[in-house]
Amino acid sequence: MPTAQQASTGRRRNPATRAAILATTFDVVAELGYARLTIEKVAARAGVGKQTIYRWWPTKGALVLDAVLERSLGPGEPVDLPDTGDLEEDLTAVLVATVEEFADPAFDRALRGLTAAIIEDPELGQAYRERLDEPMRELKRRRLRRAQEVGQLDVDVDLDLAVDLIFAPVTRRWTERSGDLTPEGVRAIVRHALRGLAGSA
Amino acid sequence: MPTAQQASTGRRRNPATRAAILATTFDVVAELGYARLTIEKVAARAGVGKQTIYRWWPTKGALVLDAVLERSLGPGEPVDLPDTGDLEEDLTAVLVATVEEFADPAFDRALRGLTAAIIEDPELGQAYRERLDEPMRELKRRRLRRAQEVGQLDVDVDLDLAVDLIFAPVTRRWTERSGDLTPEGVRAIVRHALRGLAGSA
Repeated sequence: MPTAQQASTGRRRNPATRAAILATTFDVVAELGYARLTIEKVAARAGVGKQTIYRWWPTKGALVLDAVLERSLGPGEPVDLPDTGDLEEDLTAVLVATVEEFADPAFDRALRGLTAAIIEDPELGQAYRERLDEPMRELKRRRLRRAQEVGQLDVDVDLDLAVDLIFAPVTRRWTERSGDLTPEGVRAIVRHALRGLAGSA
Repeated sequence: MPTAQQASTGRRRNPATRAAILATTFDVVAELGYARLTIEKVAARAGVGKQTIYRWWPTKGALVLDAVLERSLGPGEPVDLPDTGDLEEDLTAVLVATVEEFADPAFDRALRGLTAAIIEDPELGQAYRERLDEPMRELKRRRLRRAQEVGQLDVDVDLDLAVDLIFAPVTRRWTERSGDLTPEGVRAIVRHALRGLAGSA
């Protein structure tokens, strides 16, 4: 039984309840999109009170961000990007795997919902950058730093520019549903981006 | 006075009414965002009946797309991209001008609203590609084709890939509010993208 203090602050989370709420949120955003998702709907479907959700997630945006994080990262530390020594091959593999995730309609719709929300909500965008984009970006920078060390990438190039040049075209083709997202299409982007970022070595 | 047939089909648009509805729509999406915009609110503020709006725009998405088109393209044909013979300079100028448009908070919010809606709504995305993205993309391809003719761009490179590599990183830095959007930051993207797309001439 929770102590009076735990009950009043409400900070003690039951892991199973938390997991159930996040899984339900993911399903609801995948089904209805972001605009039509409400805390009420998630609460009813997860079989919990609205207040239980509000206690842990102050806004709908915070709830959806956690639901997508839980599904896409899972528990534990994120893993390093592949490093076979062939930079074009490794980055193409990462991007092809990303595109394959979009082939799951539920994941596609949930991530579209979160992406749309981020574009309009600066505060949610900030949380997204800190909790999802920046940890992923650091893995990408780490892989690119190793490429700089072996002369595959210009040592003077800004690594954030490199990440944007390699990854943004694929993201845009996905968000706007325009352009070639086949493995060949993805590889061509990586090849030309890397040519523009190549070291003179 | 309209004939009975005009009144019954309702297809005859009064240009002043149309312009007033679109200007009001732009203001409402800039103020409230896409999710909170309703046809009712636009009708009330524009001083027209809801049915007048529904007769011309079947959905909220169609209305917002037209409002943004009207504001960003204006009347007449879109103009060609600059061609001073210096491709890096010309593309940097285009992208810096784009970023400057985002500095207007009303334009920034309205375009964020439309972009968010497109991500979630495939039908609206299709209309956006046909009516806004594709005409702009054709101007970009035309400028790049001239660069191919004078050996500044690989003649074998796919022009849609070239457009995505040059333009997508700036779009993403804007949508995610991440990364350097100063003229120097934009120029660095253009320079590296063009290096990756350069001809051997």
